[in-house]
Amino acid sequence: MNFEIMITDGSTRLGKITTDRGIINTPAFMPVGTNATVKAMTPGEMKELGAEVLLSNTYHLYLRPGHDVVSNVGGLHEFMQWDGPILTDSGGFQVFSLAQLRKIKDDGVEFRSHIDGSLHFLTPELVMHIQGALGSDIAMVFDECTPYPADKEYTMNSLKLTSRWAQRCLDARNSEQSLFGIVQGGMYKDLRRQSAEELIEMDFNGYAIGGLSVGEPKELMYEMIHHTGPLLPKNKPRYLMGIGDLLDVLEAVSAGIDMFDCVMPTRNARNGALFTSQGRISIKREEFKNDDAPLDPKCSCYTCSNFSRAYLRHVYMIKEIISMRLNTIHNIHFFLDFFRNMRDAIGNGEFGKFRDEQTPVLQENFHP
Amino acid sequence: MNFEIMITDGSTRLGKITTDRGIINTPAFMPVGTNATVKAMTPGEMKELGAEVLLSNTYHLYLRPGHDVVSNVGGLHEFMQWDGPILTDSGGFQVFSLAQLRKIKDDGVEFRSHIDGSLHFLTPELVMHIQGALGSDIAMVFDECTPYPADKEYTMNSLKLTSRWAQRCLDARNSEQSLFGIVQGGMYKDLRRQSAEELIEMDFNGYAIGGLSVGEPKELMYEMIHHTGPLLPKNKPRYLMGIGDLLDVLEAVSAGIDMFDCVMPTRNARNGALFTSQGRISIKREEFKNDDAPLDPKCSCYTCSNFSRAYLRHVYMIKEIISMRLNTIHNIHFFLDFFRNMRDAIGNGEFGKFRDEQTPVLQENFHP
Repeated sequence: MNFEIMITDGSTRLGKITTDRGIINTPAFMPVGTNATVKAMTPGEMKELGAEVLLSNTYHLYLRPGHDVVSNVGGLHEFMQWDGPILTDSGGFQVFSLAQLRKIKDDGVEFRSHIDGSLHFLTPELVMHIQGALGSDIAMVFDECTPYPADKEYTMNSLKLTSRWAQRCLDARNSEQSLFGIVQGGMYKDLRRQSAEELIEMDFNGYAIGGLSVGEPKELMYEMIHHTGPLLPKNKPRYLMGIGDLLDVLEAVSAGIDMFDCVMPTRNARNGALFTSQGRISIKREEFKNDDAPLDPKCSCYTCSNFSRAYLRHVYMIKEIISMRLNTIHNIHFFLDFFRNMRDAIGNGEFGKFRDEQTPVLQENFHP
Repeated sequence: MNFEIMITDGSTRLGKITTDRGIINTPAFMPVGTNATVKAMTPGEMKELGAEVLLSNTYHLYLRPGHDVVSNVGGLHEFMQWDGPILTDSGGFQVFSLAQLRKIKDDGVEFRSHIDGSLHFLTPELVMHIQGALGSDIAMVFDECTPYPADKEYTMNSLKLTSRWAQRCLDARNSEQSLFGIVQGGMYKDLRRQSAEELIEMDFNGYAIGGLSVGEPKELMYEMIHHTGPLLPKNKPRYLMGIGDLLDVLEAVSAGIDMFDCVMPTRNARNGALFTSQGRISIKREEFKNDDAPLDPKCSCYTCSNFSRAYLRHVYMIKEIISMRLNTIHNIHFFLDFFRNMRDAIGNGEFGKFRDEQTPVLQENFHP
């Protein structure tokens, strides 16, 4: 994996990650394909929409169908028929947010599956083995996602555990995979610094900021992003995990973040919440019943190029599968188009202007 | 609408229906798009798979979103973005099979919606108005689907009602639509003859056989098809409603039937029951867990060209939307390919050979 910065504008960077499976232009949005499928979409459609990298979930694939199954069929790319780069998370966040009866030990985490209650024990070594079996291009270290709020002692111990696990992941890494460290440290600036320094010492291919957007006020999250971003090596990709509110993305890009992932475009789509140039639209509303206009007149996606709001409302109300497809196409297009436009703006030295122009539209979409 | 017979082989016919929106090669299979969408599919995908005509349901679209909504948006073709021919059924069968508290009166049928219990009254004139508003290429007369079993007096009265309603539909027809009559008469040969004669007198653009596959033994259904098919005008399309077991289709084609519709390929797909050259496969079976072979090695569809049985099982087990998409693509391909091959065989004077060759495979798919 190679990372090249093309242009910088203050802390903001326009970059390019070159992998064996293709180029990822940064700042990049990674659509989420939790169970080896971006919900409702084919891999071909994702490519057409311009996705350059997908994220898939180690925790979910470990539980179902099992990494051995994926490996037997030739790895995750072959399994899901996506030939571009894939980043797998480590399961650390899912163990924190989904699994039950979680017991964190020094060696790893014992938990019960959220699906069937079965007992599991994930260690850094096993997580690296799973990600190796999946064959993702970028693997993530196994970390403890520090909860919010957490006192300083807990947070300190937690970040130390994450650092020890990071080293064990490095030791167990599959040489063909890139590996990213994950900075923890909760809402304590000195601990964020300590976490970053310990991980930088280990020399990862890239660095993620974890443990944000876990319940803290937005101002605090922004403060942590601005504090932590610049601590990370300039010549490595920086990834802000799980954040997709595009106002937050603008803030993070201004702090030098390069990579993002979020289920928001796909999940909201299935709930009929659609992002548009005129603000968020809830497609179920009565006012759209006879509306023959496209969802977003300024949008060039397949959905907006072909179907009326009346049709989108109709198929949403009766829960037809086509509704989830058309809505997902639109929302992913909205996100990927936003990132394309943002990269163009950075390339033209106009990120500030882009941010000012986009902010009111994003307010109407993300905080209407 | 023009109907041309290219080749006959005994009672079997190879034909071509020319509509303003395109050609329908017969024998034809009409995939079902009940709610203005073939479940899980885009119209573009249906075209790619070779569908030449879709069926949509008057009863469902009348209830949701309402024919006025469809009409306001420019009609059903514009609404669902399918520019090929559409046949709409009349709602007669759905009133019989879905609606509640049905009261058949001479003027029409009073019933309660299966969705919200609301009270409705469908008459032949309203049904023609609805189909006119939808703007389908081929409309069907409003009929009473005679139940099974039914005594001769009931069946006689029922067919007379259907004949009176057929005349009222003709009187109320929209001149731009083709209109098909529906032969009833239950399991009584003389009443089937009487129904056919009364409808032929009225001169429809085509003739359907209704009231079959309603619970009667298969031998009796075959007897009725062989009896009724030849009673219908040779120079008009003949449509056997709602039947899609491909063994039944072979039987009906041998009796001179030209058109078919059935939800079987789409519904079975969503339930993980897949038709293949090796017989029906239930994709959830444990044996497919690590199976890297395509679903059907002899199939050229998108699903079989790209994905393994292991993947299809995985996404089926966790109910991912892609499962319904990939399965539906495959099953529709299986049906449309069967019809293409059958038409080729008829064209080559080899329908008998085709039927003999296909019968064992179809047994394994439809009566395993």
